[in-house]
Amino acid sequence: MSASPLLDQLIEALRCLPGVGQKSAQRMAYHLLERDREGGVRLAARLAEAMEKIGHCERCRDFSEVPVCPLCASPARETQLLCVVETPADRLAIELATGYRGLYFVLQGRLSPLDGIGPRELGLDLLAARLAAGDVGELIIATNPTVEGEATAHYLAQLARQHGVRPSRLAHGLPLGGELEYIDRGTLAHAFGSRSEIPS
Amino acid sequence: MSASPLLDQLIEALRCLPGVGQKSAQRMAYHLLERDREGGVRLAARLAEAMEKIGHCERCRDFSEVPVCPLCASPARETQLLCVVETPADRLAIELATGYRGLYFVLQGRLSPLDGIGPRELGLDLLAARLAAGDVGELIIATNPTVEGEATAHYLAQLARQHGVRPSRLAHGLPLGGELEYIDRGTLAHAFGSRSEIPS
Repeated sequence: MSASPLLDQLIEALRCLPGVGQKSAQRMAYHLLERDREGGVRLAARLAEAMEKIGHCERCRDFSEVPVCPLCASPARETQLLCVVETPADRLAIELATGYRGLYFVLQGRLSPLDGIGPRELGLDLLAARLAAGDVGELIIATNPTVEGEATAHYLAQLARQHGVRPSRLAHGLPLGGELEYIDRGTLAHAFGSRSEIPS
Repeated sequence: MSASPLLDQLIEALRCLPGVGQKSAQRMAYHLLERDREGGVRLAARLAEAMEKIGHCERCRDFSEVPVCPLCASPARETQLLCVVETPADRLAIELATGYRGLYFVLQGRLSPLDGIGPRELGLDLLAARLAAGDVGELIIATNPTVEGEATAHYLAQLARQHGVRPSRLAHGLPLGGELEYIDRGTLAHAFGSRSEIPS
């Protein structure tokens, strides 16, 4: 296609990135070659290193290049609080938005029997062992408010109760800055039903 | 930020890609780590190789990892036709859309004195030498229909005439599939003025 087979190969390889089609891949390749070769070289090195060295933390299953990630190893975190999330991105979102100082457990997915994702694929045996060890007082379930996320939450709540751990989940309701008129019915019904008294 | 410094570095490095901000970079890194490590490794290798080996063809200035690109070296192309484009992407677009079988010259930019881009930066000495050699019969000027592109086209046309080469440029007019009502005034005026008789 282009005058350079190496360039064609680079464009093809860039398409493995999510949301990048032929046109974007082309634009990215040209941009790097024309204006940012240094950035391209750095990206290549970072990419190779990350793909090779990043595995999963053996405690929380988040991405980590060491056996136990810095967050799990930190003595500053409260070990009796454990927050379960679906993905590393969810963990990061909670970490950035809240003042939460407990630990996390990353499922790396959600229960989805049709796709062959059961408790084992989500490392729930590891979670059960942790709950059985008796360190955890509250299991904060922060799966997504989707059908599969809710099913996973239900399963996790049962697991917690089996081990005498109190399960909790994030509040549902109106998002801040949202307009009532445009909120979906399910959320509005939930927010209405879960209304709380205004303290005087 | 995340549980892995290497991951943070990868996310930072991905931001050198055009149109990729913090959120997209994060999504890309997670996608590669979770679902396509092989693609990530391949991308790293292609990127490193491309950044190191791709230079410019010494005849057409397009990207090439060999001194003379395959297109310039091809005996199947008509050497008396030379098409000047601003970027490699423009060359590729013409190559894919038209049946053009001549050669190309890639400016890798356009005249823009305020940005310090003059004839030398666009390799016009190389182009002048090629025109002086007498092989070229027609210089097809395919710079973009922008103010700077038009100025560059004007300069190129003069250069061609100086060397006794016939300059031509791409037709302006209505784009196929466009609606008259929504065409900008300049284009419409040009299309109206350049109307051609319908052969019987």
